[in-house]
Amino acid sequence: MTRWKLILEYDGGPFVGWQRQETGPSVQAALEDAIRGFCGESVTVHGAGRTDSGVHALAQVAHFDLQRDTDAETVRDALNAHLRPQPIAVIQAEPADSEFHARFSATGRDYLYRIQNRRAPPVMERGHVWWRPGALDHEAMHQAAQTLIGRHDFTSFRAVGCQARSPLKTLDVLEVSRRGEEIHIQTRARSYLHSQVRIMVGTLERVGAGAWTAADIERALQAKDRSAAGPTAPPEGLYLTRVRY
Amino acid sequence: MTRWKLILEYDGGPFVGWQRQETGPSVQAALEDAIRGFCGESVTVHGAGRTDSGVHALAQVAHFDLQRDTDAETVRDALNAHLRPQPIAVIQAEPADSEFHARFSATGRDYLYRIQNRRAPPVMERGHVWWRPGALDHEAMHQAAQTLIGRHDFTSFRAVGCQARSPLKTLDVLEVSRRGEEIHIQTRARSYLHSQVRIMVGTLERVGAGAWTAADIERALQAKDRSAAGPTAPPEGLYLTRVRY
Repeated sequence: MTRWKLILEYDGGPFVGWQRQETGPSVQAALEDAIRGFCGESVTVHGAGRTDSGVHALAQVAHFDLQRDTDAETVRDALNAHLRPQPIAVIQAEPADSEFHARFSATGRDYLYRIQNRRAPPVMERGHVWWRPGALDHEAMHQAAQTLIGRHDFTSFRAVGCQARSPLKTLDVLEVSRRGEEIHIQTRARSYLHSQVRIMVGTLERVGAGAWTAADIERALQAKDRSAAGPTAPPEGLYLTRVRY
Repeated sequence: MTRWKLILEYDGGPFVGWQRQETGPSVQAALEDAIRGFCGESVTVHGAGRTDSGVHALAQVAHFDLQRDTDAETVRDALNAHLRPQPIAVIQAEPADSEFHARFSATGRDYLYRIQNRRAPPVMERGHVWWRPGALDHEAMHQAAQTLIGRHDFTSFRAVGCQARSPLKTLDVLEVSRRGEEIHIQTRARSYLHSQVRIMVGTLERVGAGAWTAADIERALQAKDRSAAGPTAPPEGLYLTRVRY
């Protein structure tokens, strides 16, 4: 038996999210189906991050166990053949230690959020960015974001249905920068609460628009109440970019 | 009457090309319909480059004349509202001199061709790149490309149905570079023959794959025969990136 580690890219648009659900197609189910199609084995695929409906991944990590003796190129190419035409691709497959667990071995997860900040609506980037046509001050956003760095009770930045036992999380990086007509928000943490990145982005957008100040972000954090933070930014701008081990 | 100059972005995927045709939706017709929807005037929109079916534009330039007295922000925003949900956006609108002609005043046109060069099929970039999974030597491609710089009879690099009177064109720039897993081919010329950029790319790809040498490119150019050059690269990797005046 071999434990296989995959690095995956997917467009979250058509999926209910990473996790298998009754309500529609998931990335996990698509992978499990592709593995069955490739070698007839019914396995469970474990992902490092359970991305929500509509959220993209440039480098999600997943693992599964296979009885069949095969090589990495075959796993990658056969899964890609069986995944078509779905917008999921195996970028890399490699044998992993039997102790390796995509989710529990992970020590950090990086996300990127892309805002397209221009008057004209998205065309080439449609479905891959959040369109905000009004002026946004990315420097004010970056400065306000630093308030959230460190270990905090992120109750205000947590979806109402969040299942996590504790609202305490440590945020290592939250950087806001402008790249031409886009604003990029990059985060790094061991893990996040449900919708934490999207609520942080939705709140920072209020700062960029001039409606909120850094002090408002601090107050929202202290309130420990979801209604004290800003809106949840839409999923189409969010990308899981790296899982650290 | 005001002459309006537009800078346009569009995804060529759903269109028969820039030019109005009986066979399907064109960018030109979509713009003319949007102008009629905005102010009731039936005008002809002139584009700088008649991009083929499936070819994209990041900065196509077009002009048209309007009787109505209005301002640039209104033209841009109203056309964008009327263009939805089609993947065409007016990035900028500005009043132009009455002598300005998007096509005839242009002194140069820049194109970008994107090849996604990796084993895994395109996901986030699907429809926006040409997928070539095998190894490509971009340095050999760049070197061979320099053979085509200057004024030549480009008959070998011209679609069979090309209507241009003369096959003589001057190619100013043809640069091949690698950007991570993509190979970018950037061109600049006053104008091109029909499918010239895509045939040059399809021929350079043969060099990158090791099937052709720079000497083969030279021989293809000298042959003045379409069958002497390589295949026509698909439209989805091609972008009109700039029109110079």
